[in-house]
Amino acid sequence: MKNYFSSNFKLGVLGGGQLGKMLLTETQKFDIYTCILDGSSEAPCAQICNEFYQGNLLDFDTVYNFGKKVNLLTIEIEHVNIDALLKLEEEGLEIHPQPRVIQTIQHKGKQKDFFVKNKIPTSPHKRFSSLEELKNEKHAFPFVWKSAQFGYDGTGVKVIKSKNDLSLLNDVDCIIEKLIPFKNELAVIVARNKNGEIKTYPVVEMEFHKEANQVEYVICPARISNEVAQKAQKIALKVAESFKHVGLLAVELFQTENDEILVNEVAPRAHNSGHYSIEASYTNQFEQHLRSILNLPLGNTDSKLAGIMVNLVGEEGFSGDVIYKNIDEILKIDGVTPHIYGKKQTRPFRKMGHVTIVNNNVNEARKIAEIVKNTIRVISK
Amino acid sequence: MKNYFSSNFKLGVLGGGQLGKMLLTETQKFDIYTCILDGSSEAPCAQICNEFYQGNLLDFDTVYNFGKKVNLLTIEIEHVNIDALLKLEEEGLEIHPQPRVIQTIQHKGKQKDFFVKNKIPTSPHKRFSSLEELKNEKHAFPFVWKSAQFGYDGTGVKVIKSKNDLSLLNDVDCIIEKLIPFKNELAVIVARNKNGEIKTYPVVEMEFHKEANQVEYVICPARISNEVAQKAQKIALKVAESFKHVGLLAVELFQTENDEILVNEVAPRAHNSGHYSIEASYTNQFEQHLRSILNLPLGNTDSKLAGIMVNLVGEEGFSGDVIYKNIDEILKIDGVTPHIYGKKQTRPFRKMGHVTIVNNNVNEARKIAEIVKNTIRVISK
Repeated sequence: MKNYFSSNFKLGVLGGGQLGKMLLTETQKFDIYTCILDGSSEAPCAQICNEFYQGNLLDFDTVYNFGKKVNLLTIEIEHVNIDALLKLEEEGLEIHPQPRVIQTIQHKGKQKDFFVKNKIPTSPHKRFSSLEELKNEKHAFPFVWKSAQFGYDGTGVKVIKSKNDLSLLNDVDCIIEKLIPFKNELAVIVARNKNGEIKTYPVVEMEFHKEANQVEYVICPARISNEVAQKAQKIALKVAESFKHVGLLAVELFQTENDEILVNEVAPRAHNSGHYSIEASYTNQFEQHLRSILNLPLGNTDSKLAGIMVNLVGEEGFSGDVIYKNIDEILKIDGVTPHIYGKKQTRPFRKMGHVTIVNNNVNEARKIAEIVKNTIRVISK
Repeated sequence: MKNYFSSNFKLGVLGGGQLGKMLLTETQKFDIYTCILDGSSEAPCAQICNEFYQGNLLDFDTVYNFGKKVNLLTIEIEHVNIDALLKLEEEGLEIHPQPRVIQTIQHKGKQKDFFVKNKIPTSPHKRFSSLEELKNEKHAFPFVWKSAQFGYDGTGVKVIKSKNDLSLLNDVDCIIEKLIPFKNELAVIVARNKNGEIKTYPVVEMEFHKEANQVEYVICPARISNEVAQKAQKIALKVAESFKHVGLLAVELFQTENDEILVNEVAPRAHNSGHYSIEASYTNQFEQHLRSILNLPLGNTDSKLAGIMVNLVGEEGFSGDVIYKNIDEILKIDGVTPHIYGKKQTRPFRKMGHVTIVNNNVNEARKIAEIVKNTIRVISK
């Protein structure tokens, strides 16, 4: 084993947002030296890593030169310059997840083709390289349109109900998918290290706000039958074994009306659906990511307690210097932990933080989560 | 409530060692801006706080000038210049724990007098202002000698068995105490906020290495009867209510052969006996310290699971660049979390980190703790 702890070893991270920040909690715990590259000098990681660099993650030279400063490179966001990663890897730099994995996943067309090729159940799709190409074809409405690249938190995804809707779309490389009616959105995080050791976290359930179509609660364990949970775990493992990634892989799944499990999409990194693990799991996803990429033994993915995460997003109608109104009210409730990401400015729907609720009983936790959601407000001065 | 989260509020901390570092994990979680003063530019906190200042914590001007930069001041070590704190407080700065509390506790003679005055059970003591004064008196041997100030982790404490032993002592302000045979050393951490809200953590047991006389394991919950636990909690609360401190107060206790509870000494801050809480408690001691000093509602002090802490100290015979040998072996065990404090150089008995073991069963955890202790080695290259 290499000596990572209080040593000269330098871990590089592409991206310095909230996922990077929560990873830094773990690098600090292990005293692992970190270098971070992010586009903004005000990124949540900027002040608390060992070396911070501001630069464009999609620029070849910026990513390549950053890679030359570190001993191992990882990501907290998949929208990075792949050519630079491929060249760095060719020159001997260890990069986890591997550039080929990031390359496949960062393009939704390639990602879906990969699922089909590896016989991973997923909704049928078609790829188009332009809006014109898409418009020239006959379609059965409704269907789901997705921008092939740079989608994030529901941006770049639209349900197209008629020919008229097509005019609302951007002229970009895209895919369309069959719209599948589903009962639940589920997710499974899979960790895999270089030795091939592999562990899955429990299946979580993503409960959506019906009108806003935003994830409101991530619930662990998911309130589903054992049978469905086992099917979801098995499919997530199949995805991981197909990618043979090193690091974390978050697998988002649909549970259809017929209890079929379909893979929606994957992310090769720590994921919003795993934030509950900081308070609820024996090994949280960020520590697990470190263990995976450093080829250390993987930690126990079991939960100590049920955990629910509530996203804290900026309230509509407020922009400017953020205030977390009623945060003292939620701090009064047992098992409630707010995480504030460190963005000074709020905007409608901006992800500003999250709150974890842990409890022995998942239904009790769900009730508290609703109280938390209805109490704390992310507004401006 | 003041706005502490992602705001212009600046929290100052005197001391930037491992306790400060673990506090920073919590300030980062809440995005509270931190300024830290420490004597060493290589302090564990130096690179991960917002503003770091190097300077002598015992120097009036250094502490006073630092205090002028912040909105609220706290400590991670009690050996600080009190006159500067008293002046800052007089000028309106909020300081928690209060300077008068630090002043009493940082001097073991004043601390013992305080216990006596407040009818807190403790072993009988006498104060001496010099070695000569001590030598001029007749003594019943054996007794315990303690330097009145600057003792730390057992330094400045000696058992004196005969007149000859007196020649080994430093010529300092000191106290002597009756040597009390005890069954167990226990500790209770009490949190108190400015509103007077008060919460105690469960009683923990400090298991000592018989030869080395160093704490080997901190075990939560202590393996004692409910009756003894309740007595210990009650006495810890009495100490807290006497001090009316704001922040944490760690109360170290002896359980005598007759199940009497005596207060040994107290610390007005986060404490080694509470490190288990990071993994085992609903609210860890560092988050609780923040909640206390910011006058936020206190968090739940219950445990999710049994927790045991093993100190990682430098092995005898090794000095220099540290290596944590077999750390990968302990990472294989479920529920095991190492914390590496970030000191680059090891020395015999230097506190370099700790390992927490959590488990549903405290006896199982104790077995694992022993395996951990016998596996990991803190050595040099």
